[in-house]
Amino acid sequence: MFARTKPGSATSDDSPMPRPTPLSGFPEWLPRQRIAEQLVLDTLRTAFELHGFVPVQTRAVEPLEQLLSKGETSKEVYVLRRLQAEEGSGDAGLGLHFDLTVPFARYVLENAGKLTFPFRRYQIQPAWRGERPQEGRFREFWQADIDIVGDGELATHHDAEILLAVLDALSRLPLPPVRIRVNNRRLVQGVCQFLGITDIEQTLRTLDKLDKIGVVGVRAVLVETAGCSAGAADALLGFAAVSGDAGAVRAAVAEVGAGGELVETGLAELVAVLDATVGTGAVIADLAITRGLDYYTGTVYETQLVGHEQLGSICSGGRYEALAQADGHTYPGVGISIGVSRLLSRLFAGGLLDASRAATAAVLVALPDEQSRAACSAIAGALRARGIPVEVSASASRYGKQIRDSDRRGIPFVWFPGAPGESDQVRDIRSGDQVPADATSWSPPAEDLHPRLVGGT
Amino acid sequence: MFARTKPGSATSDDSPMPRPTPLSGFPEWLPRQRIAEQLVLDTLRTAFELHGFVPVQTRAVEPLEQLLSKGETSKEVYVLRRLQAEEGSGDAGLGLHFDLTVPFARYVLENAGKLTFPFRRYQIQPAWRGERPQEGRFREFWQADIDIVGDGELATHHDAEILLAVLDALSRLPLPPVRIRVNNRRLVQGVCQFLGITDIEQTLRTLDKLDKIGVVGVRAVLVETAGCSAGAADALLGFAAVSGDAGAVRAAVAEVGAGGELVETGLAELVAVLDATVGTGAVIADLAITRGLDYYTGTVYETQLVGHEQLGSICSGGRYEALAQADGHTYPGVGISIGVSRLLSRLFAGGLLDASRAATAAVLVALPDEQSRAACSAIAGALRARGIPVEVSASASRYGKQIRDSDRRGIPFVWFPGAPGESDQVRDIRSGDQVPADATSWSPPAEDLHPRLVGGT
Repeated sequence: MFARTKPGSATSDDSPMPRPTPLSGFPEWLPRQRIAEQLVLDTLRTAFELHGFVPVQTRAVEPLEQLLSKGETSKEVYVLRRLQAEEGSGDAGLGLHFDLTVPFARYVLENAGKLTFPFRRYQIQPAWRGERPQEGRFREFWQADIDIVGDGELATHHDAEILLAVLDALSRLPLPPVRIRVNNRRLVQGVCQFLGITDIEQTLRTLDKLDKIGVVGVRAVLVETAGCSAGAADALLGFAAVSGDAGAVRAAVAEVGAGGELVETGLAELVAVLDATVGTGAVIADLAITRGLDYYTGTVYETQLVGHEQLGSICSGGRYEALAQADGHTYPGVGISIGVSRLLSRLFAGGLLDASRAATAAVLVALPDEQSRAACSAIAGALRARGIPVEVSASASRYGKQIRDSDRRGIPFVWFPGAPGESDQVRDIRSGDQVPADATSWSPPAEDLHPRLVGGT
Repeated sequence: MFARTKPGSATSDDSPMPRPTPLSGFPEWLPRQRIAEQLVLDTLRTAFELHGFVPVQTRAVEPLEQLLSKGETSKEVYVLRRLQAEEGSGDAGLGLHFDLTVPFARYVLENAGKLTFPFRRYQIQPAWRGERPQEGRFREFWQADIDIVGDGELATHHDAEILLAVLDALSRLPLPPVRIRVNNRRLVQGVCQFLGITDIEQTLRTLDKLDKIGVVGVRAVLVETAGCSAGAADALLGFAAVSGDAGAVRAAVAEVGAGGELVETGLAELVAVLDATVGTGAVIADLAITRGLDYYTGTVYETQLVGHEQLGSICSGGRYEALAQADGHTYPGVGISIGVSRLLSRLFAGGLLDASRAATAAVLVALPDEQSRAACSAIAGALRARGIPVEVSASASRYGKQIRDSDRRGIPFVWFPGAPGESDQVRDIRSGDQVPADATSWSPPAEDLHPRLVGGT
């Protein structure tokens, strides 16, 4: 596939190598799709910054023992080793992070003395999980996260603020409508306690599988392995079947008859989130949502693309009171993560999102002959100086061929240098319109300057 | 360090965990530095797009056998395995890429039928090498690459075009001046042949170590292990000592007396690059430059930051005729890679580059009391709708404290909601100037809207 080349020789051996093929679970885009992906990431970043989040990037690796303490994902961690690592070289025991929350919690602990709290950060990076690849589930995938972390305490109004920020961000993209489903783990834990369920952690993890194994499957697991009585399982499943507004949540709690501090606190937090986001029309309570990750403690979120529910959640998160703890300090946080790769894979495959063109250049400067390259580069330089992306033609082929090349590349304008004493001309190759133009003053229409994001039909 | 939390409990066990410490070789920045890094990457990307390069991202992993065929870096490759990988699961034999050139060559082979050639791409990603960390040399580091690849052939004028693009990009940053050193491996190979040197590959790799082991060291290795006669080694080292303009290169070739096709071709290519870039004043020939990687075949580049030469090359690359080959097709390329992490680590450490502030928000909306949060959020929304980044104060503490918080976070303006019937006010907390303002029309000065990149003093 690749040639190990010897200096001075352009070929390596005589056997033709086969072309490489994609690696399952490691998606790569063509440039046009990457342009669209970048525009999506730019849009998210702009929105996050408008809401005062600051950027953080963490290294790709974390100490393995930290990754492995986070529960169900441990079997999916990619472990690193140096090919020729010596004993005790200090880089044993590293793994690739499987999300951006665990690394961020570590970053907060490591840098707490240099941060101001509540600390609001966004983080847009790949993460890796060795899962079996399937639709919308990759081994390498981009996430775009926002989190707010406090020192010692974090007010509950931030739970709603995270939703308002992420809804603002998503609303800037040409997407199908989204629906965010919210629940509160304290509320569900309180209901479980009230129902006499003992293994609450296992119960919540089982509830999270409703989508996968259904009510009958979940009920069986609850009774057989989570220590629920049949009556408790039925009551819990009835509670979890409720979704809707704050009134529906209150009615569901009343129906079970549950009370106590956990239930009261969880209910109040959930209602506060619903009240603060009611104006968006995009947030509902769903008492079945628990999230698989054990570190969530209160509010939890999942997000569906309306009409594409089978894709699963494209944007999830919640409140974690104790993920970041050291030296007796606790840094409670709340955050949400947009599964950018999952979202885009569906949008691209469905023709629902695209870039307006595959080229960054708006103009191709045609080359009359190779001797004119320096003059053509000067024209390109004059256009670039005013922010217009330009390529100079790679070869001085016939103008007809240069125009076809521009068309194939998706570059909308071709610039023809004038003969001495004559004006330059620029042609819109879509309409064929050609006009005299000066490189120090001409500009393309604003919508043609850069590729844009376009939604599906 | 991290707490595995149980649902409903905010603490995990009783022993206080120590704070995590940084991993050597895996740099992470504070938000202010990350803001600066992002502005640097934005600037590079903008410049690359102005020159018609399109974005590509490749997965972080490549099949190990391809990474290992690339010569000297093989011992530094990070190998991956899934923690609970089954036999024959298909993800054995993956490693993290150590540069962006090898993955890009693979990407071109894999997608050739869907690309238009010459294909111009930029790629900005981390890469990983298990090297011993030292100043400017990291285990995880960001690179920003541009390459142009042809199908079957690629005109030599692209060798200069790459330099003009990267110099334009670097000139947009507040950097110390850069000096690009150019050589041509064909020319050096031709001179070696003329001098009767047989192990040319080893000779070039040895010459590349002049910076590290000096003339005496290189001479010893050339004579003892690369099969050079003492006279040939001296002649080659005399040739390699030359740097300067095209005239100096021609004089050096004449001094050795070398000729033949390789020498003629290499000399013509080198002179063409020098001629096309002479106007920049930043490019000189340096006949000692060979680059360590075997895949380079013609033009090679290295770049120094003037006054910071000991940092090594911050921007390197060259022509590779045969890196991408399959099915009897060859895709020759030329490219250059900016070592962003190496560059920034020096600039940050030296106080030579910074962001104008650590906050993305330009305005903090002060909160008179918790009941006013919805009203304050509405003010924030009105400002954001006009592109102004805003935070609402996290708590309704005394205004004096909210102003101090804004100052500590680096947010330049504090917005005070007016009492009913009174106008809102906005204060520049640097000057203390406070004026009446309307959220639907007020804007901060353009230079305060977003953090900016500022050079050192």
